[in-house]
Amino acid sequence: MRIQTIEWVNSAVKLIDQTILPGKLQYIYATDAPTMYRAIKTLQVRGAPALGAAAALGVYLGIRNSRAKNFHVFARDLDKASKYIARSRPTARNLFWAIERVCRVAVRNKNKEVSQIKQLMLKEALAIIAEDKVTCRRIGYFGNALIKRNDTVLTICNTGILATIDYGTALGVIYRAKEEGKNVKVYSCETRPILQGARLTTWELKRKGVNVTMICDNMAATLMQQKRINKVIVGADRIAANGDTANKIGTYNLAVLAYFHKIPFYVAAPTSTFDARIKTGKDIPIEERDPKELTELYFKKPIAARGIHYYNPAFDVTPHSLITGIITEKGIIRRPLDKNIASALKK
Amino acid sequence: MRIQTIEWVNSAVKLIDQTILPGKLQYIYATDAPTMYRAIKTLQVRGAPALGAAAALGVYLGIRNSRAKNFHVFARDLDKASKYIARSRPTARNLFWAIERVCRVAVRNKNKEVSQIKQLMLKEALAIIAEDKVTCRRIGYFGNALIKRNDTVLTICNTGILATIDYGTALGVIYRAKEEGKNVKVYSCETRPILQGARLTTWELKRKGVNVTMICDNMAATLMQQKRINKVIVGADRIAANGDTANKIGTYNLAVLAYFHKIPFYVAAPTSTFDARIKTGKDIPIEERDPKELTELYFKKPIAARGIHYYNPAFDVTPHSLITGIITEKGIIRRPLDKNIASALKK
Repeated sequence: MRIQTIEWVNSAVKLIDQTILPGKLQYIYATDAPTMYRAIKTLQVRGAPALGAAAALGVYLGIRNSRAKNFHVFARDLDKASKYIARSRPTARNLFWAIERVCRVAVRNKNKEVSQIKQLMLKEALAIIAEDKVTCRRIGYFGNALIKRNDTVLTICNTGILATIDYGTALGVIYRAKEEGKNVKVYSCETRPILQGARLTTWELKRKGVNVTMICDNMAATLMQQKRINKVIVGADRIAANGDTANKIGTYNLAVLAYFHKIPFYVAAPTSTFDARIKTGKDIPIEERDPKELTELYFKKPIAARGIHYYNPAFDVTPHSLITGIITEKGIIRRPLDKNIASALKK
Repeated sequence: MRIQTIEWVNSAVKLIDQTILPGKLQYIYATDAPTMYRAIKTLQVRGAPALGAAAALGVYLGIRNSRAKNFHVFARDLDKASKYIARSRPTARNLFWAIERVCRVAVRNKNKEVSQIKQLMLKEALAIIAEDKVTCRRIGYFGNALIKRNDTVLTICNTGILATIDYGTALGVIYRAKEEGKNVKVYSCETRPILQGARLTTWELKRKGVNVTMICDNMAATLMQQKRINKVIVGADRIAANGDTANKIGTYNLAVLAYFHKIPFYVAAPTSTFDARIKTGKDIPIEERDPKELTELYFKKPIAARGIHYYNPAFDVTPHSLITGIITEKGIIRRPLDKNIASALKK
């Protein structure tokens, strides 16, 4: 069965509920902005490209029942709806990029009827979904050129079907390599605290028939020491103008390990993840989440002493100097990243 | 209340059951070798120095009801008992060191009555317990010299009271620094898969009034990047003649990160953890444990897809080149470790 992470079905957003995988494949139907906000906030939908589509549709749900008769009033409703969705999570660039895209469509068409503007905004949100399918396949195409037969790739978090619409970024590269008949093997870091690697990546790789081995995050170094990893490929939540990349916590750790063990370290992301207005990784806002994600593990039972301190950053920043290349839908951006990103994005 | 990890009370071994901490402080009373074997195997007792004491007492429990009337017959029972306990876990040197110690006492006294030999073996096992208390305090004394006021120390697994008899190795250094009035702060890696850092280290540091912050293992790199760590201090399960050190999985990861970020990386261990017969880390036997530790997390519920592969090494090996020094009860062994270990152990 083909699955799609986010779909527009019968005037509702149909989402895979990622908090209950791998136990069950179950869907949420969002018909209003608060349901969408909650889905994003509680990680029922996650992954930067998927968050873009979710946010665009979330803004649309926020304004579709607007009673505004003219653009002036509608703009206020739109501002409220987009700011609301924008507050859901701070790091992934795609979320803001998508909100800006649907808002721009509204502004561009401000002389049209409000009902027409709404329709054009929905069309734009659905275009984001359609484009993501193509974008991911192009990332897979370009990334596949880096994969040799029998390569073993280490990855973290989930960057596949469930992080996008239906294919993936870093895992898209794996899927394409598999389609090309390459016997590629994947090690999936479980990705504490939320376990996206354990719960989501193993689930979808297994489903697609990819040979996958799960490890705890702290075992990656040993695999590299044993020369069992040929490449590290990860996703991205936001890429600064110089190539510094915010991604799931643990990514920077892998980048240092890959550098030390002389293993190529690639980021795979659509160009919508780049934030040209942010010069370096220092300025990327990093979400800190509820310490309960650490202390109650995944099953809401305490695993640590009470009354201690906790630190739970959801992302880290990998400096561009540790990144071998960035695989985008426009091709692979090579080093020096700080020089090559601007021209690559202009293509 | 003062706690002691292993005690000899009323002809039984009284052990803290470490599998149910931090929820409850509960004791096991072992009166036979199988209970001791199970306690070691299932990690009710763990930590290299504590395993030494547990194994010595385990061997004694295995022979105390021997009906042998002469040494010849007794030696067969002893061989069986010691081999049985030795099969419980393969990596920690202290376990074998302690078994060898009680066996040597038997051999040395083979001309005595069997009942006397048994008593001497028990005495030896209790000496191991008594010595550990002194050894750990000496490790704390020497290690404390490395700690500056307001230092922040990163550690992994549990190397404190619960890993020894009542004080600790790496955490012993912290306790001594605290006793000296130094305001030392600790970051504790949760230590997947068994969460000794989250469950045990936060519990005992909190109990002792040490400022402790828990992180997931994959967050250590970010802390170092942010210059929030002054030192890494870890324990050891076995140290080869050249200084290569087997310790809890994730230790090698921290060593690479510390090297990259130019942070001193210390191992704290009694000399009983050294294995002079093993030249390099390559020859240290590394235990691989049940994949369920990975896939069912801590609460026996599946967190990963079924039918995939898993890799669950309980330890990794840090090459001596990444170790700044080894803190022992005889002093700090400095670089070059491969040169300095032999002479340090002769002291």
